[in-house]
Amino acid sequence: MYKFITFCLLILAKVSTSYGQSDEAIAMVNKIHTQALTQGKSYDWLRALCKGAGPRISGSLAYSNAVKIVSAQLKEIPGVEVRTQDVTVNYWQRGPRETVEAIPSRGKKWILKSLALGNSIGTGFKGIKADVVEVSSLDEVDKLGKEKLAGKIVFYNRRMDPGIIKSFNAYGRASDQRVSGPSRAAAQGALGVIVRSMTQELDDYPHTGSLRYSEDAPKIPALAISTNDAEKLSAQLKNGKVEIFMKDDPKTINGKNSPNVIGEIKGSESPEKVIVVGGHLDSWDVAEGAHDDGAGCVQAMEVLHLFHSLGYKPKNTIRVVLFSNEENGLEGARTYAASAINSREKYIAAIESDAGGFSPRGFTFDADTSVLKTYFRNVSKNFLPAMEGLGYQFEIGGSGADITPLKPTKAMLVGLRPDPQRYFDFHHTARDVFEAVHPRELKLGAAAMASLIYLIDAYGIE
Amino acid sequence: MYKFITFCLLILAKVSTSYGQSDEAIAMVNKIHTQALTQGKSYDWLRALCKGAGPRISGSLAYSNAVKIVSAQLKEIPGVEVRTQDVTVNYWQRGPRETVEAIPSRGKKWILKSLALGNSIGTGFKGIKADVVEVSSLDEVDKLGKEKLAGKIVFYNRRMDPGIIKSFNAYGRASDQRVSGPSRAAAQGALGVIVRSMTQELDDYPHTGSLRYSEDAPKIPALAISTNDAEKLSAQLKNGKVEIFMKDDPKTINGKNSPNVIGEIKGSESPEKVIVVGGHLDSWDVAEGAHDDGAGCVQAMEVLHLFHSLGYKPKNTIRVVLFSNEENGLEGARTYAASAINSREKYIAAIESDAGGFSPRGFTFDADTSVLKTYFRNVSKNFLPAMEGLGYQFEIGGSGADITPLKPTKAMLVGLRPDPQRYFDFHHTARDVFEAVHPRELKLGAAAMASLIYLIDAYGIE
Repeated sequence: MYKFITFCLLILAKVSTSYGQSDEAIAMVNKIHTQALTQGKSYDWLRALCKGAGPRISGSLAYSNAVKIVSAQLKEIPGVEVRTQDVTVNYWQRGPRETVEAIPSRGKKWILKSLALGNSIGTGFKGIKADVVEVSSLDEVDKLGKEKLAGKIVFYNRRMDPGIIKSFNAYGRASDQRVSGPSRAAAQGALGVIVRSMTQELDDYPHTGSLRYSEDAPKIPALAISTNDAEKLSAQLKNGKVEIFMKDDPKTINGKNSPNVIGEIKGSESPEKVIVVGGHLDSWDVAEGAHDDGAGCVQAMEVLHLFHSLGYKPKNTIRVVLFSNEENGLEGARTYAASAINSREKYIAAIESDAGGFSPRGFTFDADTSVLKTYFRNVSKNFLPAMEGLGYQFEIGGSGADITPLKPTKAMLVGLRPDPQRYFDFHHTARDVFEAVHPRELKLGAAAMASLIYLIDAYGIE
Repeated sequence: MYKFITFCLLILAKVSTSYGQSDEAIAMVNKIHTQALTQGKSYDWLRALCKGAGPRISGSLAYSNAVKIVSAQLKEIPGVEVRTQDVTVNYWQRGPRETVEAIPSRGKKWILKSLALGNSIGTGFKGIKADVVEVSSLDEVDKLGKEKLAGKIVFYNRRMDPGIIKSFNAYGRASDQRVSGPSRAAAQGALGVIVRSMTQELDDYPHTGSLRYSEDAPKIPALAISTNDAEKLSAQLKNGKVEIFMKDDPKTINGKNSPNVIGEIKGSESPEKVIVVGGHLDSWDVAEGAHDDGAGCVQAMEVLHLFHSLGYKPKNTIRVVLFSNEENGLEGARTYAASAINSREKYIAAIESDAGGFSPRGFTFDADTSVLKTYFRNVSKNFLPAMEGLGYQFEIGGSGADITPLKPTKAMLVGLRPDPQRYFDFHHTARDVFEAVHPRELKLGAAAMASLIYLIDAYGIE
């Protein structure tokens, strides 16, 4: 259905474009891209963030250092006002001792490559040892029930479907195992959970990520294992029983301040009207968070830098918001949205880049249902002609986890959509480092964002 | 103008699509993509080619090994007939001693990272030592003339413009320095040439590539230097004179047989009508030729494998042609085209993948001017609806060096267009190895080609 709407709107857009506006818009969009590729700061900023702060889970000292680094970078841009917004988070800390060991009834025991899931509790000092039961879905857990699962370790092994072209859709169809799997297994008496990592590839890198404990079940420990180890374990289970010994000791410190960082250029005509552009500043504790989401942060900052360096004075306030705690709580997003909804400011649009620093392909648009169709018709009609020459495509779809809570403001919500094929090589793993980001791909993503924001600012969406 | 035509045709396409055909076509295109991602052989074939044959310049023993490897791979596909077509090439061999040394009048001398250009002659045993003169264009060489350049070494240092989004366009605007620069400098009495490598990035990797000696000037030796060394040399020239010592000893063995490899499925309805799909099998002598163009070869072969594995029996003959000698002569293309033009077969279309194994973005279409507009209108109208849902775009533009000589057959000529941002990190360097290719990106390129060929075969372009 969405596809059909998109299709109709595209026709409308192409037929009814006013060419006068479009020529000027095309010229500026091209200028933004050239500027980003030749004078952009995003790549250097990303290096400084990744190498200077390192892994920066919200609540950590590294996160505080990251706040300092990006605040200083924002202050390098003339005319930008920088502040922080306090956010209270639960600081989850991985412990020093994480082990998952498989002990087959036949064959040799071995250590699996594993990472505790974010927000998980630990096993206790002695660890947990129990027979493992492989399942492929939450429903299968319900069906097996207490009789089969009480006292066991549940092993979720549904792979992220490599046949799906849009990798994020494959992720969406697999990640319930990680997010809700532990509590669903606990409800049937399981003692612990191991989850196959969320990637289409077979490799040795475990992918962490957050779980969400339900209030209806006891909290049990949970770790992700690499896809190669998942395959090996599954093969071994076909030959007979396997015991798993798992041990880890994460802890959570509640009530830490882990602020959002905000930098803005005030609007020259309507300072009370706001366009938000953001990413999330926190990363997982095992990675430099280059693609997830250092890229989004520096791309958002680059928008302000490009506008300044090109002498473009926005009519509306352009506000960079670098959110805290996206990975394991979304408290940064909630805190910002609460302040936005209570403010007298008018939110025009919010744009997030949180899908990796890869070559940009287009944007997805979301909004309150009362305005979504109008917005999408307008952006397709007014902005697509200036963007499609560079290969960008517009679709209705989700925006970003940090800006979705802004929906009640009736802002248009936009997600940058980079090419998704390589993302799940890096996502939530130790491989997500600065070197995994390509300078031109990163810079073009920033240019895409700056171009769309320029168009929204200059021509409006209503 | 092309853009405007594209635009009009897109409207036409969207308004006039027959939806019955399109639903069936969309289903098959999606099936091809899923099959390529989950059952495709292209990635494994590429590993075997890159690691088995290694660098395989035409005329070399490694090239002969590559012929054996891909012939065996093609024979794995049931129903495919495999043969070779003799091609006579001049086998250019890099010598064991390549040196470029800069000796500044002030400061320390140093060795530059260099690679002799393909088809170049050597310096002779003693090498050449002379003052270097930096230029930024062929015109500047003409302007400086014999007075300034006789007895000198000319240093072409116009960079590949990083501000151009479409990297191949930037390459096109810079590569005249490498291709024609040596003879233009020789015509003004220069003794040798060094050329800044063709990449937007600053790094330590020299990029080779072929030159073309003019008959109007003496042949002089020429080498590429890394962009970092080009920057350093240029900086030093601002402080005073720099002498360059250059020495290399390539040789050329004329008249070697270095065949094209051909594999085909005969058409079930019209075996005399042919759709060619290809890449070039030769690579530079310093690289595994993974992106350039092992990727194109295995993607072309994958088309036959996907059709077989999905049970699709093409109406027309689908012929894989893996061309020889693209890098330094195009003799494979010329030989094939001559046989095609003289044959009784009817060429419907030819498709080449020679722009890297990156995430596919779309296709460019070319043909004899008498048919180009009709073809492009038809493919836009009939095929774009089945392809654009996966993000593919159609444009009028060049196709591929190996298939362009087929233009007199009035075939539609098509180039696969992958994302171009990373290509010139690898192009013609020692970095172009199997590990630089991403499995999903490679497989999707094969799926894109197979989808377009399915559409052409099933629905026609006339």
